[in-house]
Amino acid sequence: MRSFLSIIEILAVLAFAYSGVVEARRHGFDFVGVLTIAFVTAFGGGTLRDVLLNRHPLYWIEHWQFLVYIFALSACAALLLRFNQDFSSRRTLMLIDALGLGLFTASGVGIALEMNAPLLPAALVGVMTATFGGVLRDVLCSQKPRLFQPTEPIYAICAFVGAWIYILLDRLGFLPELALLICIAVTFLLRVLAVRFNFKLPF
Amino acid sequence: MRSFLSIIEILAVLAFAYSGVVEARRHGFDFVGVLTIAFVTAFGGGTLRDVLLNRHPLYWIEHWQFLVYIFALSACAALLLRFNQDFSSRRTLMLIDALGLGLFTASGVGIALEMNAPLLPAALVGVMTATFGGVLRDVLCSQKPRLFQPTEPIYAICAFVGAWIYILLDRLGFLPELALLICIAVTFLLRVLAVRFNFKLPF
Amino acid sequence: MRSFLSIIEILAVLAFAYSGVVEARRHGFDFVGVLTIAFVTAFGGGTLRDVLLNRHPLYWIEHWQFLVYIFALSACAALLLRFNQDFSSRRTLMLIDALGLGLFTASGVGIALEMNAPLLPAALVGVMTATFGGVLRDVLCSQKPRLFQPTEPIYAICAFVGAWIYILLDRLGFLPELALLICIAVTFLLRVLAVRFNFKLPF
Repeated sequence: MRSFLSIIEILAVLAFAYSGVVEARRHGFDFVGVLTIAFVTAFGGGTLRDVLLNRHPLYWIEHWQFLVYIFALSACAALLLRFNQDFSSRRTLMLIDALGLGLFTASGVGIALEMNAPLLPAALVGVMTATFGGVLRDVLCSQKPRLFQPTEPIYAICAFVGAWIYILLDRLGFLPELALLICIAVTFLLRVLAVRFNFKLPF
Repeated sequence: MRSFLSIIEILAVLAFAYSGVVEARRHGFDFVGVLTIAFVTAFGGGTLRDVLLNRHPLYWIEHWQFLVYIFALSACAALLLRFNQDFSSRRTLMLIDALGLGLFTASGVGIALEMNAPLLPAALVGVMTATFGGVLRDVLCSQKPRLFQPTEPIYAICAFVGAWIYILLDRLGFLPELALLICIAVTFLLRVLAVRFNFKLPF
Repeated sequence: MRSFLSIIEILAVLAFAYSGVVEARRHGFDFVGVLTIAFVTAFGGGTLRDVLLNRHPLYWIEHWQFLVYIFALSACAALLLRFNQDFSSRRTLMLIDALGLGLFTASGVGIALEMNAPLLPAALVGVMTATFGGVLRDVLCSQKPRLFQPTEPIYAICAFVGAWIYILLDRLGFLPELALLICIAVTFLLRVLAVRFNFKLPF
């Protein structure tokens, strides 16, 4: 169970980082840029969460192994992309990303609740944890955040719904790990449906 | 008196948020974007102040009611703007914004002084509290911050003058609330004159 | 020795600030913009370091004299640049900047190690301390960070190497000030060679 969640976490961090690598390459950045954007996309949300909630040491300072994984991934990916070999499947990436969306949301909400934040801010911290990395990636690439574009299927909304599911289960007295799993499942399902049927906000 | 300041605060937060809604719509963002930019414009300055001064919990985590107000405002505004109904008067907005400029400046300076910051950094924290939300709004919309444009009448300068007024009154032993009111009045007046007579920096 | 380091520090802060002034002017910002970009370029890295490591009060709140220096520099520079008198020598600026690169890297690593960060995150905090100000400058000017461009000679890499040198010397039991000096010397040399021979990342 613990190790099951760890696997999701590692996959999700790598999927977020990979989206950063692709974006950085698309903008013609060199390896310093690729690595920076990969780190920022993967850890931006968690870092914002920890800074807003005053929780130290930061996630990536404590679990520095993740930095090594991202470094290795970025080096491989940057090399492969250089030869135009994008071996990644768009669908696989989307699925892993959707798992990460749920996991990061739940982690943000869980930590905010632990620190006695009121419910609404806790839910928003969850959404930020899951989405801020992508926004920072787009800002560093000097383009309008994709998260805000009406052409993209709902993304933050899935995280927001997942956050409230987690809060509800937490208030009902569910074990944190169970609440986490259900939150991941719901967010994942919602996101996959959103992409499949192209759900968009009406305005 | 307390409730008078609370009314200014709510109006100012809403005026800042509204400027975010208008900007987000102008860039064609969907409702997630509109809401994010509204939050960021309204709370960006206060959040930066609290993070720089290490003051927790953050303003919007403690007073989560403001999040609800902004949510309601953004939903109404986004709907109305969709039908091209900008019912807001440019002049009214400018006046409320000028009140908020003074209020946020004073709040930033006051908190910085309480935490024993030296005077010059305290004044700058005041200016940042009042202006950073707008800068962040422009960065997220991927445009050069309006605050830095020579075509705009002085804005940060009004906050800077107001900050020093507050510091002066504080050192002279005025009650915080009185210093706050005078700071708001001076900043407001200066800003209104700046817009009316189009004061600009000479360089 | 202490005063020797202080001189490097002041020169480096001013060199960083000056690069901000030039950039802000190039984008046609007014004096508020010039001053903001100058502050951000000079203190952005150190502020990020302190916020990430939860170290308060912040550098520029404690040593507010630096704010005065930057204010004076920006006023002079903005006036001179207005009359197209860029008296600065590109080479001198590069040399001072290279000194600052080493100094800021070492300060970031040193503080991170003091706070018991693991080695890899400590090295990255050092690199961020030295480079983040420039990235923030470019983001506020709404352009892609120069740090990530393949046309620029290696910059972050010099800081990264310097960071590991510092860590190595620290582990070997060298006095902090000696480690600092050697780190500055190595980073400086590497950066000067990189510019002279136009070292670039292979990908």
